Amino acid sequence: MRKLNVLEMNRISIDEFKRSKKNPLVVVLDNVRSMYNVGSVFRTADAFRIESIYLCGITSCPPHPEIHKTALGAEEAVEWEYFKNAVEAVKKLQQQGYDVLAIEQVEGSTLLQDFTPAENKKYAVVLGNEVKGVAQEVVDCCNGCLEIPQFGTKHSLNVSTTAGIVMWELTRYKLAPFE
Amino acid sequence: MRKLNVLEMNRISIDEFKRSKKNPLVVVLDNVRSMYNVGSVFRTADAFRIESIYLCGITSCPPHPEIHKTALGAEEAVEWEYFKNAVEAVKKLQQQGYDVLAIEQVEGSTLLQDFTPAENKKYAVVLGNEVKGVAQEVVDCCNGCLEIPQFGTKHSLNVSTTAGIVMWELTRYKLAPFE
Repeated sequence: MRKLNVLEMNRISIDEFKRSKKNPLVVVLDNVRSMYNVGSVFRTADAFRIESIYLCGITSCPPHPEIHKTALGAEEAVEWEYFKNAVEAVKKLQQQGYDVLAIEQVEGSTLLQDFTPAENKKYAVVLGNEVKGVAQEVVDCCNGCLEIPQFGTKHSLNVSTTAGIVMWELTRYKLAPFE
Repeated sequence: MRKLNVLEMNRISIDEFKRSKKNPLVVVLDNVRSMYNVGSVFRTADAFRIESIYLCGITSCPPHPEIHKTALGAEEAVEWEYFKNAVEAVKKLQQQGYDVLAIEQVEGSTLLQDFTPAENKKYAVVLGNEVKGVAQEVVDCCNGCLEIPQFGTKHSLNVSTTAGIVMWELTRYKLAPFE
């Protein structure tokens, strides 16, 4: 099977991206310490054409060389907004009709494979700090929690890997609307 | 919803991991330059209890401080093997009954959301270099190609994010067998 060359991939320009119909998904990053993780989330968000990234608390904002190192320019395509407090971001999203789901290991969470997004519903997902995860007070104001099942020795996945899996899972059901 | 504490997560020890029934999936990394990416793949492979990681070409092997920085010890749990040439690794897997799938953007690839793993089949996935992807000669000896659909401005996803999405997608269908 012949590999495609870059032209055959038919990627869109940043201007086309800005004007395009988006995947109605918002990713909220709360107190993410590593700018490499932030950049990596931008890169994945670009690929899945997501609506926006909300950067909260200590999470760094573009432009920044360390974000650029892993975003590779995707930070110029994907919309973002900064919030001092993630609770404020969650409340704004809920007022705009988003179902906001924390990605956390909590009592009574929904396992990711058991979650089917409702059609015509807009979702936002909240990912937290590399060590502490999503703060309990942020979890408390979300509409629910999704959990990626884990069977290994470590307690969590990397935050940008988690974001990638969750963005993919919430995108795979509705690839048609923005194709 | 109350966050779980570390003890409630019931993670297994490295010894228990070694003895446990594995997810019959092998991840082949060919000429992956960044040791952070290698470590990150180990961390995700641990979470999904995958069989083994095959490290090929210039891909670095554990133990190494840079791999450890993102693997966080998962490199001591997950089995791995080194191959000078990825073609050799693919052929060994095929001889052992694995269907080997390159993760690449190729003519006639299967989009990831259209792929349903067959029951009782063992799969291996091949991920390539950060810039060049999977080499054409390696693609040529695989049994097929899976592609993650992308709708953005950039030409590819980060290799450890890609590995995470693919490991998740091939795991979500068969969570029961190794629970």
